[in-house]
Amino acid sequence: MDDLFDGLEIPVAADFHVHLRDGAMMEAVTPTIRQGGVDTVFVMPNLVPPITTVQAALDYKKRLQAIEPNVNYLMSLYLHPSITPDTIREAKKAGIAGVKSYPAGVTTNSSSGVVDYEAFYPVFEAMEQEDLVLNLHGEAPPSPEAMEGSGASRQITVLNAEQEFLPTLNALHKRFPKLRIVLEHCTTAAAVEAVKGCGPQVVGTITAHHLFLIIDDWAGDPINFCKPVAKLPSDRIALLQAAASGDSKFFFGSDSAPHLLSAKKGLTDGGLGAGKCAAGVFTQPNVVGFVLEGFERAVKAGVLKREVLTEEVIESFTGRSGRKFYGIEEARGKIKIRARNVQVRNVKVGKAGEGENMNETVVTFRSGKPTYGVDWL
Amino acid sequence: MDDLFDGLEIPVAADFHVHLRDGAMMEAVTPTIRQGGVDTVFVMPNLVPPITTVQAALDYKKRLQAIEPNVNYLMSLYLHPSITPDTIREAKKAGIAGVKSYPAGVTTNSSSGVVDYEAFYPVFEAMEQEDLVLNLHGEAPPSPEAMEGSGASRQITVLNAEQEFLPTLNALHKRFPKLRIVLEHCTTAAAVEAVKGCGPQVVGTITAHHLFLIIDDWAGDPINFCKPVAKLPSDRIALLQAAASGDSKFFFGSDSAPHLLSAKKGLTDGGLGAGKCAAGVFTQPNVVGFVLEGFERAVKAGVLKREVLTEEVIESFTGRSGRKFYGIEEARGKIKIRARNVQVRNVKVGKAGEGENMNETVVTFRSGKPTYGVDWL
Repeated sequence: MDDLFDGLEIPVAADFHVHLRDGAMMEAVTPTIRQGGVDTVFVMPNLVPPITTVQAALDYKKRLQAIEPNVNYLMSLYLHPSITPDTIREAKKAGIAGVKSYPAGVTTNSSSGVVDYEAFYPVFEAMEQEDLVLNLHGEAPPSPEAMEGSGASRQITVLNAEQEFLPTLNALHKRFPKLRIVLEHCTTAAAVEAVKGCGPQVVGTITAHHLFLIIDDWAGDPINFCKPVAKLPSDRIALLQAAASGDSKFFFGSDSAPHLLSAKKGLTDGGLGAGKCAAGVFTQPNVVGFVLEGFERAVKAGVLKREVLTEEVIESFTGRSGRKFYGIEEARGKIKIRARNVQVRNVKVGKAGEGENMNETVVTFRSGKPTYGVDWL
Repeated sequence: MDDLFDGLEIPVAADFHVHLRDGAMMEAVTPTIRQGGVDTVFVMPNLVPPITTVQAALDYKKRLQAIEPNVNYLMSLYLHPSITPDTIREAKKAGIAGVKSYPAGVTTNSSSGVVDYEAFYPVFEAMEQEDLVLNLHGEAPPSPEAMEGSGASRQITVLNAEQEFLPTLNALHKRFPKLRIVLEHCTTAAAVEAVKGCGPQVVGTITAHHLFLIIDDWAGDPINFCKPVAKLPSDRIALLQAAASGDSKFFFGSDSAPHLLSAKKGLTDGGLGAGKCAAGVFTQPNVVGFVLEGFERAVKAGVLKREVLTEEVIESFTGRSGRKFYGIEEARGKIKIRARNVQVRNVKVGKAGEGENMNETVVTFRSGKPTYGVDWL
């Protein structure tokens, strides 16, 4: 039963949630998009400072195109008080694909994020009118107590933050029923159910790594630590089943999030290096391989039946449903999957030829392990 | 309401769960016992190799006494197939205080641990006859699937491992009703309830750090990562209430577990340093300060009422109940608590005078923050 997908030919994939960063990191990561079997990416705007103007998004796109012109970059804005209904109309005209909302303080570079959704209702209304997609990082923010780490009574944790956000999703959907919404990187059975329970305007992305991970995998392993955190075995099953359902409401967004190893290990806070670990799992160079491997492992574990994983179902998840949702053309080319004989490699940042060290290395998910390879046809 | 316990005088504390290690680490950590306000410690046997003979335990005790003679070291054996009923009788005669059971693979140096409790029934019977205490690391072991990280169906996680162990606790208690059992480092409301539900032979220890931490505090912070992991806010409340209940079934065991910072960060696996983080929170130099600070924070958060924290209740938790359970004499001296003006410091391992680095530093819980000080009267 090894290598279930050897020889599979599917359309080139699309990845509807990527972090490509800027500067040297961007230079290192952007070339890995096609390596992963992907020609279209939805690019997150959480640079430092965040992308809050159309011009900044277009400039960022140019920088990305200069590195790898053969990728279709769908650009986004970072929801922020400086964004007005006029910004939305300008964004639509400029071809911006979405507006990403980060609750304040929940993940990497989210300190400029949303505290109060109601303040953005005029913006959401304009987005609904202009048919611009709202991309939600769906976690309820920790209370101020939780941030201080002092409160014994705080009730929102990394475990229930997504579930606690779902009423906000439902409220936004109810108030703006025509607004197209993506609940990004679903990690819970509850999120899957919530997305299913909304109208067709509401969809969810699922990462590759959440098809693999549960809480035990990031407990004590910063490489597997991301936000939202991987949850329980039952949640992982729900994600696998949603990804393999053929339901066009669920499609792939890797949330591939590169950090230098030194940041993943929390060594960048100065002093001895006892700081906190950066949240994010980097999967970009092997995204299609990881999705198929996730499916394969689920088949082996008896969670998915091999028969449900038809080409149509796989293609729906790895590109077709997302392309349709964002209104972009279908994939032109195809990729062919090779048996699991590709070794996952890390990515170097900065000058080539320098020795490998923690300040110039991004460790890839499942580094050193074999995964499916991808040939472009 | 700051500094609730300034000026408090209580008997010298006892810590019924400590890791003192061996070699250079032992040299560094053992002198911090009295610094924390403690004169009596129950010493864990998970050295490498583990302490499985009476002679090894007595030799270890001598090494500890050579470093700090003014501490009462209660020694333990590591439950292991080589331990027989004869070992138990020998241990009792030699003054060994307990036998520690680690389920295989759940925490630091537990690879020699227990897979099947029934295999030890003859040993437990001898322990019951000899009135030797059984100290349980109360976590159900991960399934083989979980260890491989491959199974989508695995159901025991770091979150429910303690709760899933409780039927084993109950079964042991039922089968050996006179066997005195300590459920070490309780981390869940379920564990507190289970201990309450057993006869007086079954008690539980509670650490200082679990009075502070929840899952969010170790997510992405290896310094706060330990096994059993800190759980939910509701669990923390249950632990605080048990510790402040005056119930003699719950007493203090810090589970202070020193690791070099490089190990805490998972940098010791060779290669780039992308290994896993050692489990354990180091609290030894400030244990009494941390317990009182934990109580203070709970009062501020409205979880505990100031009135319940009488001297009697505090003394019960920090020593009296544990001393009674282990049948040792009451504390002779007293300590006086100073307002929170002591800064938590790290501990250096190895030659003094060398520069601070990750390979010679143990980071103390809440390093750099102020906590209660302790004066010996």
